[in-house]
Amino acid sequence: MPSHRLMERLTEYIEENRDLFIEDLRRICREPSVSAQGKGIEGCVKEVNRLMSEVGIEAETIPVEGGNPVILGTVKAGSDAGCIGFYNHYDVQPPEPLELWETPPFEADVRNGKIYARGVSDNKGVLVARIEAVRTILNVMGKVPVNLKFMVEGEEEIGSPNLPSFVRENMNRLKADGYLWEGNGVDEKGRPIITLGAKGILYVEFRARGANRDLHSSMAPIIPNPAWRIVWALSSMKGPDGRIRIEGWYDDVIEPTEVELKLLEEAPFEEEMKKRELGLRSFLNDLTGIEALKALYLTPTCNICGLNSGYTGPGSKTVLPSEAMAKVDFRLVEAQRPDKLIVKLREHLEREGFGDVEIVSYGGYEPAKTPPDDPFVKFVIETAERIYKSKPVVWPTSAGTSPIYTIKNWMGIPVASAGGVGHPGSNIHAPNENIRISDYLKAIRYTVALITSYKPSK
Amino acid sequence: MPSHRLMERLTEYIEENRDLFIEDLRRICREPSVSAQGKGIEGCVKEVNRLMSEVGIEAETIPVEGGNPVILGTVKAGSDAGCIGFYNHYDVQPPEPLELWETPPFEADVRNGKIYARGVSDNKGVLVARIEAVRTILNVMGKVPVNLKFMVEGEEEIGSPNLPSFVRENMNRLKADGYLWEGNGVDEKGRPIITLGAKGILYVEFRARGANRDLHSSMAPIIPNPAWRIVWALSSMKGPDGRIRIEGWYDDVIEPTEVELKLLEEAPFEEEMKKRELGLRSFLNDLTGIEALKALYLTPTCNICGLNSGYTGPGSKTVLPSEAMAKVDFRLVEAQRPDKLIVKLREHLEREGFGDVEIVSYGGYEPAKTPPDDPFVKFVIETAERIYKSKPVVWPTSAGTSPIYTIKNWMGIPVASAGGVGHPGSNIHAPNENIRISDYLKAIRYTVALITSYKPSK
Repeated sequence: MPSHRLMERLTEYIEENRDLFIEDLRRICREPSVSAQGKGIEGCVKEVNRLMSEVGIEAETIPVEGGNPVILGTVKAGSDAGCIGFYNHYDVQPPEPLELWETPPFEADVRNGKIYARGVSDNKGVLVARIEAVRTILNVMGKVPVNLKFMVEGEEEIGSPNLPSFVRENMNRLKADGYLWEGNGVDEKGRPIITLGAKGILYVEFRARGANRDLHSSMAPIIPNPAWRIVWALSSMKGPDGRIRIEGWYDDVIEPTEVELKLLEEAPFEEEMKKRELGLRSFLNDLTGIEALKALYLTPTCNICGLNSGYTGPGSKTVLPSEAMAKVDFRLVEAQRPDKLIVKLREHLEREGFGDVEIVSYGGYEPAKTPPDDPFVKFVIETAERIYKSKPVVWPTSAGTSPIYTIKNWMGIPVASAGGVGHPGSNIHAPNENIRISDYLKAIRYTVALITSYKPSK
Repeated sequence: MPSHRLMERLTEYIEENRDLFIEDLRRICREPSVSAQGKGIEGCVKEVNRLMSEVGIEAETIPVEGGNPVILGTVKAGSDAGCIGFYNHYDVQPPEPLELWETPPFEADVRNGKIYARGVSDNKGVLVARIEAVRTILNVMGKVPVNLKFMVEGEEEIGSPNLPSFVRENMNRLKADGYLWEGNGVDEKGRPIITLGAKGILYVEFRARGANRDLHSSMAPIIPNPAWRIVWALSSMKGPDGRIRIEGWYDDVIEPTEVELKLLEEAPFEEEMKKRELGLRSFLNDLTGIEALKALYLTPTCNICGLNSGYTGPGSKTVLPSEAMAKVDFRLVEAQRPDKLIVKLREHLEREGFGDVEIVSYGGYEPAKTPPDDPFVKFVIETAERIYKSKPVVWPTSAGTSPIYTIKNWMGIPVASAGGVGHPGSNIHAPNENIRISDYLKAIRYTVALITSYKPSK
């Protein structure tokens, strides 16, 4: 832990360079880098590289075949000093609908103590905060006390299609004692939010076909209807009780630990507000309280994302469709594996008489969790409590997915998502995405604290 | 029955006026009258009126509030002479896609012994053939031997929304011994096709709602998914065995008579050709032969016409939809009633736990059948055999629907659909709709024979 005097000097440096830090972030936000649209990738990569080099991070741009480059950043402290890894992404969601933005999404307007830009919260703000933390330490202390590695990818918003193979091919260069993932932010009470894992996912499309063209619906008594095939196939997978009926689906599920359940019990859950906000009288199957949280974070799902067949316009059209499809995402929990489950899904359809229903896979993520009592995680949590002066809200895992399994499962490295710059009104993935400047500066302080107080456990 | 000499004179008249009859039909076909698009209705009504008046039919255009007018035509023969009614429609399907037409759809081009035009087969050809039959009889004989009534509506192609109330309000004016419906045509062997009924229909849309907006699919464990509600609600109505599971659905079904089943057994059914043409290895549930025909013509259906929810574009999107809908048509058989069944449907959903699923009704048709041994039907069949010199193919009912129930069920008048001008390559509802001129002239002869040989049964 740095001395009180040193911590004061570091904090002063951050205050003195506030305008520089804001301008650096705005410059990066002005580079669009929309991965889904292939827009402005190169310019953003160049700016991130430039900023890393300027503050003293050795930056290397590694091309990805058929994808956007990964930027690896390194700061050396010596072979005995341990190593902290940081994962971020420089790509952003598409800014549309543009007409709902109060100022253009790539102008990075500053007003009312906030910066407004697509990607400023998710997740250029954290990325630049971490870079500025390194600048702060190097300028105040002359060196970093721990080795640092930055992995900054450019395809997170399109599902990180190339990250798994990148990690597989670069494991030696990516080694670290623990990783800080992209981070969340603070909740409405200013409590820092920390997440220790992510669900996995298997995303598939089911397709059924009937006659070679749409027919008049009077033919329905003798012509197979693919819409019915899809409806029945889906019904065979899950009924109204929510339980997935595919044989062996739950075989590999590891039940949550006592510590994880305790975290959920301590977590804030404004369920009445949430229901009101979503226009719901009750949650699914009348779930409430801890049972709702356990479902949300710790159970697998089978969710219909999309359905399409036949005539979907206004009024009536008597048609017997020739095609039908359903898009379904299965969220997975520790330790389910998408590659094993798609086989079970195929077997299920065959067994239930739906061998005619085609499965198109859009890929999967493994679930991954780092235990709350892991030493690295404890260090991340304690440091957050010290800097934010508030007990962090710690989620044992996220309800969503993220590619952390590449680091956690494949390399065996603990991962915590912490130190983000978001707040409840950040509007990520939506118009008028923004961060509060005070949260941004605090994220820099938090990263400075992490780096300067880290002690490798050996 | 007219004398051989008279029949010869009538036939000669038809031959002599062949060009006039063709030009009259082409003129009517050049008036678009697309009810779905509200195009050219007035012009067509005027031309039909003009032609009726010209041949000696007293024509009256009756406005329909919020709809297209009905043309009533009358030819008087005296109060003891009996009365034959004709039902036709002057409206046509939209001509799109226009680029697939070899000549413009409203040009009525004549080539290779055929007339090409939207609506020429369905069903302006029959309408004009019947009018020209009257001209023939009046010009050769000076008067008609039986009273004639024409009911020509302009909304058949959009489901005849105003016909039921029109019939209710005009029952006195519409009375007849029997009705000739719009007619079919001949099959590939030149056999005239006669249909004695139609299935009914109930068309509904099911709608389900979840949260007040689409959500990230990670929320699936606690937020109701309307796509699942629709899928499960549909599954509760019908399973893969095809049996409709709604309580009481089959209560009012009247089993087909021996005579009707015999007609099906005698009917041609090119099932292998049909399967090949539709790209199917087998019909639904491996139905073949008479079992397939019984299913097609004599069983109720529950058919999904359309499904829609959430994300339906390419690739994957992890969304939890806020809305889902399914369009379903139920075909009904004698003596099911759509107004009773929609109540049973509502009760079914409540009972099965789907009270949240909304039903929007797009209306219904009653099924209706005239028995094959009805005297009027027998007369229609025998006359067809005499003129076409071929045993007619008689279907006890159609697999589709038609508003004949307004005349058959509500007024108790026998109805047969016969005397059409179509052939297997007529492309009705499709580009390059056409009729063969020889079929058109034969339809005129057939109608002349019907009118001149009719004897009221008293």
